[in-house]
Amino acid sequence: MSTSVHRIHNFSAGPAILPLPVLEQAQRDLVALPGVGMSVLEISHRSKVFEAICYGAEENVKKLAGVPDGYHVLFLQGGATLQFSMVPINLLPAGGTADYLETGAWSEKAAKEAAKVGSVHVAASSKATQFDRIPATSAASWSASPAYVHMTSNNTIFGTQYHQLPEPPAGVPLVNDASSDIFCRPVDVSRFGLIYAGAQKNLSIAGLTLVIVRDDLLSRVAANAPIYLKYSTHAKERSLYNTPPVFGIYVLHLVLEHLLATGGLDGAERRNRRKAEKLYAAIDGSGGFYRGHAQPDSRSWMNVTYRLPTEELEQRFVQEAKAAGLDGLKGHRSVGGIRASIYNAFPEEGVDALVAFMADFQRRAG
Amino acid sequence: MSTSVHRIHNFSAGPAILPLPVLEQAQRDLVALPGVGMSVLEISHRSKVFEAICYGAEENVKKLAGVPDGYHVLFLQGGATLQFSMVPINLLPAGGTADYLETGAWSEKAAKEAAKVGSVHVAASSKATQFDRIPATSAASWSASPAYVHMTSNNTIFGTQYHQLPEPPAGVPLVNDASSDIFCRPVDVSRFGLIYAGAQKNLSIAGLTLVIVRDDLLSRVAANAPIYLKYSTHAKERSLYNTPPVFGIYVLHLVLEHLLATGGLDGAERRNRRKAEKLYAAIDGSGGFYRGHAQPDSRSWMNVTYRLPTEELEQRFVQEAKAAGLDGLKGHRSVGGIRASIYNAFPEEGVDALVAFMADFQRRAG
Repeated sequence: MSTSVHRIHNFSAGPAILPLPVLEQAQRDLVALPGVGMSVLEISHRSKVFEAICYGAEENVKKLAGVPDGYHVLFLQGGATLQFSMVPINLLPAGGTADYLETGAWSEKAAKEAAKVGSVHVAASSKATQFDRIPATSAASWSASPAYVHMTSNNTIFGTQYHQLPEPPAGVPLVNDASSDIFCRPVDVSRFGLIYAGAQKNLSIAGLTLVIVRDDLLSRVAANAPIYLKYSTHAKERSLYNTPPVFGIYVLHLVLEHLLATGGLDGAERRNRRKAEKLYAAIDGSGGFYRGHAQPDSRSWMNVTYRLPTEELEQRFVQEAKAAGLDGLKGHRSVGGIRASIYNAFPEEGVDALVAFMADFQRRAG
Repeated sequence: MSTSVHRIHNFSAGPAILPLPVLEQAQRDLVALPGVGMSVLEISHRSKVFEAICYGAEENVKKLAGVPDGYHVLFLQGGATLQFSMVPINLLPAGGTADYLETGAWSEKAAKEAAKVGSVHVAASSKATQFDRIPATSAASWSASPAYVHMTSNNTIFGTQYHQLPEPPAGVPLVNDASSDIFCRPVDVSRFGLIYAGAQKNLSIAGLTLVIVRDDLLSRVAANAPIYLKYSTHAKERSLYNTPPVFGIYVLHLVLEHLLATGGLDGAERRNRRKAEKLYAAIDGSGGFYRGHAQPDSRSWMNVTYRLPTEELEQRFVQEAKAAGLDGLKGHRSVGGIRASIYNAFPEEGVDALVAFMADFQRRAG
């Protein structure tokens, strides 16, 4: 029913592109799920039909990421923004200190919320160089006894990404905001105390947050914390304490099935690496016409940020690209220039189209 | 594309039925919004396309409910459960007291979260009679100086509903959890300081919360409250502080357009009154075979709760109804019996079908 539908290349930083087969299945079944007689938008979250979807998505997260025993997979609401508060409310005891790795605007926002709960120690930062890199692991200066270490594995605005995990002091849980690169490649969950991700880039639609949390961290929370903000509330009820974002979990289930059917996280890594390498090669091969913002060893596979010789050319680039069906390329105002977001579901043909457009634009304008 | 799809009558207490034309439009445009080339599941929340949807929904709420100047309409996440905490965090100063009207399980949960923030005074309750009624307005005993009065306008589990508003002391804001009856009839917003509603019954899908809040209440919140939990955060950014639940807002927009096109809240009231009267008439006319749980003057238009002579008959009723295409009729375990949820979008034919089934069942079993 959708083969004749016109779709463009969507380089948006998020909400972002979904796999076309997922969209087509969601569309086909939207008025009534087969054999159910109701839309997935209408079914009770207490129904057997939804339990199969919700627990199925949970199992698929575990299978795809190889989540070890001793972790809970939770489906929450409120995005990474609510996690900025939930992490310290759950993990930072009164009088305690949490260490934050400062790699951009999102990690700064996370630290700001933690500072409302306890003390924040910035263990490493790349702010002095406009967040153009991930600080070297060896550069971190940990506080005496951090309650946890917080990192942001991918930085959408600046286009940087961790390619080697930081190493907190022994026994200190590592907490990762993986909103913008979760499941872009295999992940060793056992290295983390907690991983959280707004779903609207690599997983599902806006309005769903995935949390993977180690069980021993569930009991730190104060008794009088708001009930929705305790991870233990949702762990106990398997994400069904209150009405969850049903449709977001349904789309997540479809996306995870699609990932499993296309090589799992190894397959995702192969595709993402190839897409990113093509685009960075185009930048590096432009003789300086296109200049990447991120230092080469910190380059993101998900958000490729670069500048042109002048802001006027950048504006023209964005406009002409849009006219050519390449949408969402305007960089964030704090970096300027171009940002091409090429998340998991972004097709290689879209990267090829952008690379060809870049060469053509340079020929005409360079 | 959906005319041949088999749909049953969905009496679920929520998430609940949506208008069929809304489902059909969402389905038609799901792979690509006309003229946009992307799915509404993929568009940036910073795009002009989404701004038109989001601000359009906000305007439609104002138009439909006649929201006066001096109020903000907000689209949040976390359901009524997060509101149970947000209301006291925003409105109950340290050392203050809030008055709660106790009309069922949901108002008890709301009061429990408020008690984590300040003092709670139960100003009236129908707990002693198993929440079978709304306490008389005259029965309320207010505390000396409540920060606000909290009510739950419709009680899904017990099937009761306010048909006359409580009258708090002069100057005390009235806060209403309207999750299960919002926009079922005209509303005088000026009587309220704040109205909140999980969207999954009368408004949209699960994962979206509507809040209507009077501007003077935005500034009570403590500076160090979590940023997502401050109403002022979202009021300042017109619900776009962080990524909102895009698809839920889109469905809300379609539902509100549908309501406006079918007589607004006056039209909704006519339809809902007629549906409820038909069903209660069937109960009252059954010679005691069906017995309503709620006292007549507190009967809900949204959730009709009743018992049969034995639990065995109730089980048979639910099973046979389901086989006849009438799904979701099992009552909440704390009341037992039957619960027919007939929200705004529930069609009168569905009520007719249930009434006919009830008569037939009684003939066979009575």
